[in-house]
Amino acid sequence: MPDRALPSPAARLALAARRREIDAVRLLAGRVELAEAIGTLIHALQRERGASTIYLASGGQRFSDVRLAMAEGARQAESSVRAMFDAYEAPGQGASARVLALMAWTLLGLDAMQDLRSRIERRTLSAHEEVAGFSAIIAGLVELIYHLADAAQVPGVSSLLVAFLHLVQGKEEAGQERAVGALLFASGQCSEAHQQRINHLIEAQERNLQVFCDFVDAPLREKWEAQQLLPGTARLERLRRTLCAARADAALDAQHSDAWFEVCSERIDMLWELELALARRLREACAEQVRQAEQDLHDSEAVLRHLRDRPPLHQHAVERYFDLASQPGAVPEVIDGSSGQSTSLLELVHSQSARLSSMESELDAARRALHERKVIERAKGVLMSRLRMTEEAAFRALQKTSMDQNRRLLDVAEATLALPDQAFQQLAQQGAAADAKPRSR
Amino acid sequence: MPDRALPSPAARLALAARRREIDAVRLLAGRVELAEAIGTLIHALQRERGASTIYLASGGQRFSDVRLAMAEGARQAESSVRAMFDAYEAPGQGASARVLALMAWTLLGLDAMQDLRSRIERRTLSAHEEVAGFSAIIAGLVELIYHLADAAQVPGVSSLLVAFLHLVQGKEEAGQERAVGALLFASGQCSEAHQQRINHLIEAQERNLQVFCDFVDAPLREKWEAQQLLPGTARLERLRRTLCAARADAALDAQHSDAWFEVCSERIDMLWELELALARRLREACAEQVRQAEQDLHDSEAVLRHLRDRPPLHQHAVERYFDLASQPGAVPEVIDGSSGQSTSLLELVHSQSARLSSMESELDAARRALHERKVIERAKGVLMSRLRMTEEAAFRALQKTSMDQNRRLLDVAEATLALPDQAFQQLAQQGAAADAKPRSR
Repeated sequence: MPDRALPSPAARLALAARRREIDAVRLLAGRVELAEAIGTLIHALQRERGASTIYLASGGQRFSDVRLAMAEGARQAESSVRAMFDAYEAPGQGASARVLALMAWTLLGLDAMQDLRSRIERRTLSAHEEVAGFSAIIAGLVELIYHLADAAQVPGVSSLLVAFLHLVQGKEEAGQERAVGALLFASGQCSEAHQQRINHLIEAQERNLQVFCDFVDAPLREKWEAQQLLPGTARLERLRRTLCAARADAALDAQHSDAWFEVCSERIDMLWELELALARRLREACAEQVRQAEQDLHDSEAVLRHLRDRPPLHQHAVERYFDLASQPGAVPEVIDGSSGQSTSLLELVHSQSARLSSMESELDAARRALHERKVIERAKGVLMSRLRMTEEAAFRALQKTSMDQNRRLLDVAEATLALPDQAFQQLAQQGAAADAKPRSR
Repeated sequence: MPDRALPSPAARLALAARRREIDAVRLLAGRVELAEAIGTLIHALQRERGASTIYLASGGQRFSDVRLAMAEGARQAESSVRAMFDAYEAPGQGASARVLALMAWTLLGLDAMQDLRSRIERRTLSAHEEVAGFSAIIAGLVELIYHLADAAQVPGVSSLLVAFLHLVQGKEEAGQERAVGALLFASGQCSEAHQQRINHLIEAQERNLQVFCDFVDAPLREKWEAQQLLPGTARLERLRRTLCAARADAALDAQHSDAWFEVCSERIDMLWELELALARRLREACAEQVRQAEQDLHDSEAVLRHLRDRPPLHQHAVERYFDLASQPGAVPEVIDGSSGQSTSLLELVHSQSARLSSMESELDAARRALHERKVIERAKGVLMSRLRMTEEAAFRALQKTSMDQNRRLLDVAEATLALPDQAFQQLAQQGAAADAKPRSR
C-alpha cells in the first residue's frame, strides 16, 4: 500500500476521491457503449417493424424477403446487446438493481420475439398487433437507456446522454408514426382515435427533439436544424395534414401509402444519422473525461509527494483553513482556480471539493430533464390505468390542466401523482373520463 | 459459478438485481452508522463550543475545567469518526468522489482544531471568532451528512436519513443561537445585525425541524410535539423576545445570561435525545431492509430452482409477456402482487421491476427535500459572494421575492442561480445590496 506513505489520512482520502472520479468515468464509458448498442438494436427492430407491417398489410405479398433480411439484422444487433448484458451480472459494474431487473425484462421480451416473428411469418396476427408487439419491446429498451442516463454523474457526458435518450425516444415516435400512418393509408380508412394517436406521436416527437436540441452541442443542433429545411420535411408535413385533416371514417387515398412510407423513412434515417453522430460525440467526451481525470490524479500525486516531508498543517495552513471555511456557504462551493496549481494539501482538497460541487450544479439541468420525463410518464401511466384513458388522452388531460391553470406541466404531473385513490374513483364515476377512448394500439 | 446452471441469462440478471439490492442496503447501513457517529461528534463540538464561549466571555474565569472535559469528549468522538473514514479509502464502499473529498476537507478542519483549542486556552481570539471557528467545522460535518443522505436510495431508510439531516442542522442552528445569544447577554449590548442573526437562526431552525417532522414517523414526531409543550419552551420564547425586541444598542440585562444558556441547553439536549432515538430507528430500518432483501433473494432462488428444467419461455409466457408489456406505461411500473408468490420467471422479473419502480416513486419526496435544500443553500451562497450579503440578508431576499411574486422559494432560488454574471454586477451597482450588512459572524 504505497498510500500509507502519504502525509495524512486527508491526503489519502483526497487521492481516493481522484481515483473514484476515474472509476466513475470509466463505468460511464461502458454505459455509453451499451446505450449505443441498444440504440442500434432499436433501429434494427424499427426497420423490421416497418417491413413486417407492410408484409402483413399486403397479405404477405410485399416485403417478404426484406422482412427476413431485417429480422436477421435485428438478431445480430440483439446478440451484441446480450453479450454486453452478460458483463453486468458481476458486481462492481455500477449497475443498480433497477437496471439489472430491466435488463432481465428486456431479455424476456427479446426471447418472446421468436414467437412474434413466427406469427408474423404465418400471418396469424394483425398488423396493429404486430406494431404493438415491437413497440412494447422497444419501449423497454428506451426505458433502459433512461436508467443508464439517470445514473450518469459526469458533466459533459451526462448532458449528451440526456440528448441521446430524447433523440432515441423521438425517433421511436417517428417510427410509430410511420407504422400507424402506413396502416391507415393502406387500409384507406381513418378514425378519430387513429388521428389522435398520430397527432400525439407528432407532438411527443417535437417535445423530445426539443430536449435533444437543448442538451446537445452546437454542431449537432445545427445539423438537425439544417435538416428541418430539406424538401422531405415539407412533403412529410403535407402528408401529415392529409392524414390528420381527413374527416373521420372518410376514405384515404391508398396511393399515398408508398409516399408516406418513403418520407417517414427518410426522416427516420436522418434521425439515425444524428444518433450515430451523437454516439461518436459521446465516446469522444468519455475519452476526454478519462484523460482529464487521469491527468488530475497524476498532478495530485505530484503535489502530495512534494508535501510528504512537511508537517501536516502548519500555522499558515490553519489560518488559511478558517479563511477558506468562512467563505460563503462555509464548505467548499466556490471554485478558486485549477487544482493543477495547488501547492498545499489544503488548497488541493479545497479546490477539489469546489470543483466537484460545481460539477454537481452543471449536472442539475440534465437531472431535471430526466426527472421531468419520469414524473410526466408516471402521471400519464396513472391516468391510463385509473381512468382507462389512452396515452394521448392522458397526456392531453395533463396538458390542458397545465394551460388552464397556468401551471408547469411538471407541477400538474406531480399533483396528479399525489392525488389520493378516492379522487380517481370519484373522477371515474363522474364520467370525467368520458372523452377517453378505448385504447387503440 | 452456480448461476450458470440457471435457465437463462434473464434469470441470472434477475438474481444479480436481488443481490445488488442487498449490497445497496448494506452499504447504506454503513453510511447510517457514519452519519450517527458524525452526529455524535457534532454534539460534542457543540458542547465544547458552548463551554469555550463562556470561558472566553468570562475572561477565562468560568468553565475552565468544563471546557477541557468537553474538548476531551470531542477528541474521543473525533477518533471514532476518523476510524470510520479510514474504511472509505478502499474502493467498493459506494462513496462518491464528492463524499471522499468532503471527508478529506473535514479531516483538515479537525486537524486545525488543535490550533483553535490552544488559542482559546491562551485567550488570543475573541469569543465571536471562536464560535465562527467551531461553526465552520460543524458546517463541513453537516454537509457530509447531506451527501451521505443524498446517495441513499432505499425507501424507508432514505426518508429517515433526510429527517436525521434536518434534525442535525436544526440542532446546530439552536447551538449557534445559544452561542450568539449568550454573547449578547454577557456583553450587555445588542445590535441590529445580531438581532437579525438570532431571528434568522430561529426561522432556519423552524424550517429544518418542520422537514424533520415531515419525514420522521409518527412516534418520533409526537415526541417532538410533546416537547414543544414543556415549560422550558415557553421560557425560551420569552427570552428570545427580550433579545429580539430590545432596541438596537440598548443595554441587555446580563442577569439573563445564565437563564438563556440554561433554557437553550435544555432545548439542545432535547433535540439530542430525539437524534439518538432517530438513530436507533434508522438502525432498525436498515436491519429490517437487509432482512427483507435477503428473504426476497432466498424466494427468488427457490422460484428459479423450480424453473430450471422447464423450457425458457413457453407459449403461454409469450402471451403473458405482451399482456404485461401492454399495460399502461408499457414497461413494468405497476405492482401486481408480492414477488414471493411469483411462479414464473416472467412474473418474477415483472414484479421485481414493478417493485423497484414503485420504490423510486417513494424516494422522490426524500430526494426533492434534499434537492430543495441544496438549491436554496447554493442560491444563498451566490447572493452572499456576489452581493456581499450576510447569510440572513441573502435568505431574506430570496424569501421576500418568493412572497412578493407568489412563487415557490425553490423556484426563486433556481432563478437566482440562472442569473447571468452581468445581472449581479448591475444589482451590485444599483445598490440593490444597500440593505446588506457587513457579515457579522
